[in-house]
Amino acid sequence: MAIKLYGVLVSTNALRVMACLAEKDLDYEFVNIDMRNKEHKSPAFLSRNPFGQVPAFEDGDLKLFESRAITQYLAHTYSDKGTNLIIHDPKKMAIVGVWIEVESQKFDQVGSKLAWELAYKPMFGMTVDEAVVEENEKKLEQVLDVYEARLSESKYLGSDCFTLADLHHLPVLKYLFGTKTKRLFDARPHVSAWAAEIMSRPAWVKASST
Amino acid sequence: MAIKLYGVLVSTNALRVMACLAEKDLDYEFVNIDMRNKEHKSPAFLSRNPFGQVPAFEDGDLKLFESRAITQYLAHTYSDKGTNLIIHDPKKMAIVGVWIEVESQKFDQVGSKLAWELAYKPMFGMTVDEAVVEENEKKLEQVLDVYEARLSESKYLGSDCFTLADLHHLPVLKYLFGTKTKRLFDARPHVSAWAAEIMSRPAWVKASST
Ligand SMILES: N[C@@H](CCC(=O)N[C@@H](CS)C(=O)NCC(=O)O)C(=O)O
Ligand SMILES: N[C@@H](CCC(=O)N[C@@H](CS)C(=O)NCC(=O)O)C(=O)O
Repeated sequence: MAIKLYGVLVSTNALRVMACLAEKDLDYEFVNIDMRNKEHKSPAFLSRNPFGQVPAFEDGDLKLFESRAITQYLAHTYSDKGTNLIIHDPKKMAIVGVWIEVESQKFDQVGSKLAWELAYKPMFGMTVDEAVVEENEKKLEQVLDVYEARLSESKYLGSDCFTLADLHHLPVLKYLFGTKTKRLFDARPHVSAWAAEIMSRPAWVKASST
Repeated sequence: MAIKLYGVLVSTNALRVMACLAEKDLDYEFVNIDMRNKEHKSPAFLSRNPFGQVPAFEDGDLKLFESRAITQYLAHTYSDKGTNLIIHDPKKMAIVGVWIEVESQKFDQVGSKLAWELAYKPMFGMTVDEAVVEENEKKLEQVLDVYEARLSESKYLGSDCFTLADLHHLPVLKYLFGTKTKRLFDARPHVSAWAAEIMSRPAWVKASST
């Protein structure tokens, strides 16, 4: 198969690409990486991603890594397949670009730390650091306050339709919604309606249940 | 003037946009924000960037924030002006996209922390936290090892020509090169040649000396 995704199913970063592949209705082969045995630090894998992290991706002779670079490639290259995840008007796309950056620079920075502490550490039998949780929940609240205002005037973060800016949030949302941090979303009506809606998209339900 | 940039000259994030405006040979008005008096937390500024951070940007009726979203907009919208900072071939651009993400997800995360500790804190008379410096220099070395390998096979990070992927590094490089962290670049011949070359570009010399 031309498209291959190398990763593990519990990786939020691999899941971001899977969400995109599902929305674009693209067939692909999932190649499981044995992270317990450090396969992601093997020479073969390092030639796919020199940072030794999942996911890695290929489409024919093209090899990529970094989840958000992969979704951008898919959204632009397969623009005629599945859901359109970008906008062709340059000014409207520039606004989508702002919210794509906000996810990467603001939401993910704190959301991934919380997911690590509250969802992954318990899974691995590790002790949660409550000070880290408290600090990052405070920062997350500030981000969600901005989202609440934005989503009171725009149906989705980047525009009135679902785009990459929303999609990029899905994996971290999935993990946070199984923790006490969910209450910070619940407390904000526009944020919680937005999260419920994007998490119920058929492509996401399919991608996140495999 | 149609294009306005709101910020302060010592902000690496504002400087990233100034570097791009200079490469694209675009005229603009620089609007200084009085951060000492918290102008960036005023309602007027928050309507430009709800996170209360510089830079903010406008081009006619379009308002943007997040430095890398602004440079993407400029590179795409003014593709016929000044230096071409993107590549039109989708596969080649996908690779540039990977290295744009690497700057944002790997280099900036540690580079900005080091610039804060070693360049900004002394400027503000604050005490440097040597533990933070040590931890982040270790992480930076790992990133620069990947860059050294990449730059031994590619003239620039994203492709054989200068693109946004290189440009995005310039402001943090500028500040780090005035600190002891410069030795980590000097120790890697391809990285140090690349840094010297991009820092000597006329557009950057102009942007960073205003
Ligand atoms: N910015 C990267 C992050 C990749 C990443 O952090 N992957 C994690 C799993 S979710 C990983 O491979 N960690 C193992 C390691 O860092 O050694 C992306 O978006 O793809
Ligand atoms: N990701 C943002 C970061 C912006 C940022 O951190 N700006 C700093 C100055 S370099 C700032 O305004 N700090 C003041 C604050 O956070 O209150 C960008 O790339 O534009």
